[in-house]
Amino acid sequence: MNDQQHPRRVSYQHTIEYEIVNSPDLFSSKNLALLSGGRVENARRFVVIDSNVQKYYDHEICNYFASHQIEVRMVPFPGGEEYKTLESYFSIAKALDDFPIHRRDEPVIAIGGGVLTDVVGFVASSYRRGLPYIKVPTTLMGYVDASIGIKTGINFNSNKNRLGAFVPPLKVLLDRSLLKTLPQRHILNGTCEIIKLAVIKDAELFYLLEQQGEKCVEAHYQNEAGSIILDRAINGMIEELENNLLEEELARKVDFGHTFSYGLETKPETQLLHGEAVLLDVVLSTMIALGRKLISENEADRLFQLITNLGISLDISLLEINLLWQSLQERVFHRNGLQRVPLPNGIGNCVFVNDVCLEEITAAVNGLVERTGFEAWHPIKMSIFGK
Amino acid sequence: MNDQQHPRRVSYQHTIEYEIVNSPDLFSSKNLALLSGGRVENARRFVVIDSNVQKYYDHEICNYFASHQIEVRMVPFPGGEEYKTLESYFSIAKALDDFPIHRRDEPVIAIGGGVLTDVVGFVASSYRRGLPYIKVPTTLMGYVDASIGIKTGINFNSNKNRLGAFVPPLKVLLDRSLLKTLPQRHILNGTCEIIKLAVIKDAELFYLLEQQGEKCVEAHYQNEAGSIILDRAINGMIEELENNLLEEELARKVDFGHTFSYGLETKPETQLLHGEAVLLDVVLSTMIALGRKLISENEADRLFQLITNLGISLDISLLEINLLWQSLQERVFHRNGLQRVPLPNGIGNCVFVNDVCLEEITAAVNGLVERTGFEAWHPIKMSIFGK
Repeated sequence: MNDQQHPRRVSYQHTIEYEIVNSPDLFSSKNLALLSGGRVENARRFVVIDSNVQKYYDHEICNYFASHQIEVRMVPFPGGEEYKTLESYFSIAKALDDFPIHRRDEPVIAIGGGVLTDVVGFVASSYRRGLPYIKVPTTLMGYVDASIGIKTGINFNSNKNRLGAFVPPLKVLLDRSLLKTLPQRHILNGTCEIIKLAVIKDAELFYLLEQQGEKCVEAHYQNEAGSIILDRAINGMIEELENNLLEEELARKVDFGHTFSYGLETKPETQLLHGEAVLLDVVLSTMIALGRKLISENEADRLFQLITNLGISLDISLLEINLLWQSLQERVFHRNGLQRVPLPNGIGNCVFVNDVCLEEITAAVNGLVERTGFEAWHPIKMSIFGK
Repeated sequence: MNDQQHPRRVSYQHTIEYEIVNSPDLFSSKNLALLSGGRVENARRFVVIDSNVQKYYDHEICNYFASHQIEVRMVPFPGGEEYKTLESYFSIAKALDDFPIHRRDEPVIAIGGGVLTDVVGFVASSYRRGLPYIKVPTTLMGYVDASIGIKTGINFNSNKNRLGAFVPPLKVLLDRSLLKTLPQRHILNGTCEIIKLAVIKDAELFYLLEQQGEKCVEAHYQNEAGSIILDRAINGMIEELENNLLEEELARKVDFGHTFSYGLETKPETQLLHGEAVLLDVVLSTMIALGRKLISENEADRLFQLITNLGISLDISLLEINLLWQSLQERVFHRNGLQRVPLPNGIGNCVFVNDVCLEEITAAVNGLVERTGFEAWHPIKMSIFGK
C-alpha cells in the first residue's frame, strides 16, 4: 500500500494586531472611534454595558448611535467576579441570537470592567467562531490591566478563568473621564496593579507614584500627573505583553503578585477585589525578596510607605500559610512544572525564582505581622477589606 | 491634559502550524505518533473516544499507553450530530477537571468522527485558554474533511456550529485501517465529500472515482486505489484551506455543497448525515450550473452516473423550495451580504455567483424530478435515507 509517506505540514503566517487608543469624549457624536472597524451604513451594534455605567451614560450612548443612524441593542451586565460565569456567557450568546449582527463588520462593544470585558471577549471569540470586539474599560483595573491584553475567560467548576481564549480585540478605547464616577475602592483596586508594575519593572513609575500618587487617587486620575501615570503604566503593560502575547514564555514579569493571590481570590469569603489580592501577594513577595537580600530594608520601607500614603489597607490576617502554599503549587502546575515566581530585584527590576519554600513563606508572613507594629503601616487597624 | 496622542499598536507575528500524517498501525506500541508533541516521562493523556470505536480498540489503546507507562483516562463519547451540544462540552470540561493534565505538554487526544473532533477541539481550544490536541479521525467524513481544517464547534440554541473557534490541532493522525469497521452508510457519507471536492476542483479525482470508486467503497478504501483517492482528496482539501485558514476570504471552493445543505441539516426530521445533505446540494447546484450552461448535459450525466454506481441514493423529495431559499438567505448573512455560491464550471473547475434566484432553484429541483425517470438514476425508488 502506498499511503503518502511524508507528513503534510500546514503553515500559515498570521498577524495578531490591535490598537490601544486614548479617545477622550468617547460618547460625543463627533468622535467616530466607537464606530471604527465596522460598517456604518444600514448597520447595527451590539453593546454589553456594565449596569452601573449604564446609569450614568445610557442616554449619551443611545444618542450617539441614534445620531449616526445605527440600530443599537444595549445589554446590561451586572459586573463583579460572581458574574464571571457560564450563565453570563450563555445569556450574552442568546442575546446575540436575538439581535443578529454581521459577523465580520459589526463589532461587539464591551463597556465595563475587567470581568465584563473578559466575559464578552470570550463570547465574541467563540460566537460564530469569532466576532470582532471593542473594549471600553470603565474601571481603573480594566483601564491599566484587563483591557490591554488578549485574554478572555470565565470561571468554571470553581476554577478561575478555567474557560477562555487568547483572542485580540479590534480596539481598546480609553476615555479616562469614565473613571470619574468610579467608587474609591475601585480606584485603589486598579492602583494596586500600577504599584505591581512599578515595583517589578519601572523605578520611575514607582517614583511618580511616591510623588504624585496620593493626588492622583484623590483626583481619580483626572489630573495631569494621573494622565502621565496611566500612560506610563499602560505602555509598561504593552511592553511586557506584546512579545509574548500567547504566553509561550511562562516566566512573565506581569505575573508578579499573581502567585499567592490566586488562592486568596478563589476563597470567596475573602471578598477581595483582584488588585487587593495582588497587592497582598506583592507585599508578601517583597518580604521574600527582602529575606533573600534581593531588595534592601529601605526599598521595602518605601513600598510600605507608598501603600500607606495612597490610603490602601490590607488585611494580612488573610495570609494563611496553607492557602498560600497550595496556591503556589497550583501555579507550579499552571506554569508547567516550575514556580517561575517573579521577585523584585531592587525596585524596578525582576528575577524569577523556582525554589520558594514553605519556611520562607512562613518567615515572610511573620515579618509582615511584625511590621504591622510600625508606625508607617497599620494594616489591621486600617483594614477596610477582607473579613 | 496631555494624554498620549498616538495610538499604541500591538502587533505580533504568529505561525499557525500543524501536521497531517499517515500513520498506519497507530495503536501498535512501536508507533510513537500518538505520544508526539508531549512529555512521556511521568505523563498522562486524556483521551476522548467514540463509544463505538472504543468497543473495537479499547484494549489495544489501553495496552498502548500502559506499554509506555503513561497514565490514561479514556472518556467515551456517543458521537452523532445530536451530541454536538453544550452538555457534551461541559461534561468533557468537567472530566478534564477530574483528571488534571499539564496544559502545555500533555495533548488531549480525540479519537472519533467529525462531531467528536469538533466538540473536543472546542473544549481543547478554550480549556485553560487552550490545550494542544491531536485528532484521530475514525470516520471517512472525519478523515477527508473535518479533521483536516482548524474549525471546532458545537451547536447552540438550534443553530449549527454557533459556538466554536479556529484553533489548529497539534497533529492529525490518519490510520486508514480504522475505516474497516465503519458502517457502509458512513463510508458513503464521507464519499459524498470526496465527490464534492472532485466536481469543484479536481477532474482527475473525479475520473479516479469513476474508474475505481465502486471498488473503493466496497473495500472501505483499504485497497490501493482507495489509498490514492484518500491522499488526493486530503491534499486537495489542504490546498484549499491552507491559504485561507481563518476564512478571511469568504468565497471558498470547499463551500460547494454547503449552501442549501445547511437548511436540510438544521431540519432534524430529515435525519441526513452531513455528506448526504452536501451531496443533495451538489446535485442541485449542478442543475443550476447546467441551467447556466456552466456544465454540459454530458458532465451532469457523468455525475449522476457516478452517484448511482457508488450505490448512493438521495431522496430528492427533501428539496423543499422554501427551505432551500431560506438556507441560501442564511448563508448570504453568514457570508457577509453576498451569496458567494460555488458552482462547477465544467467538472473540476469553480465559479462563484451572487445572483441565484428563486426561479432558478425551482427549475433545478424540477429538473432533478424529471431525471428521476432516467434509467441511470432512481433516487426515490432506491432511497435509503431521509424520510
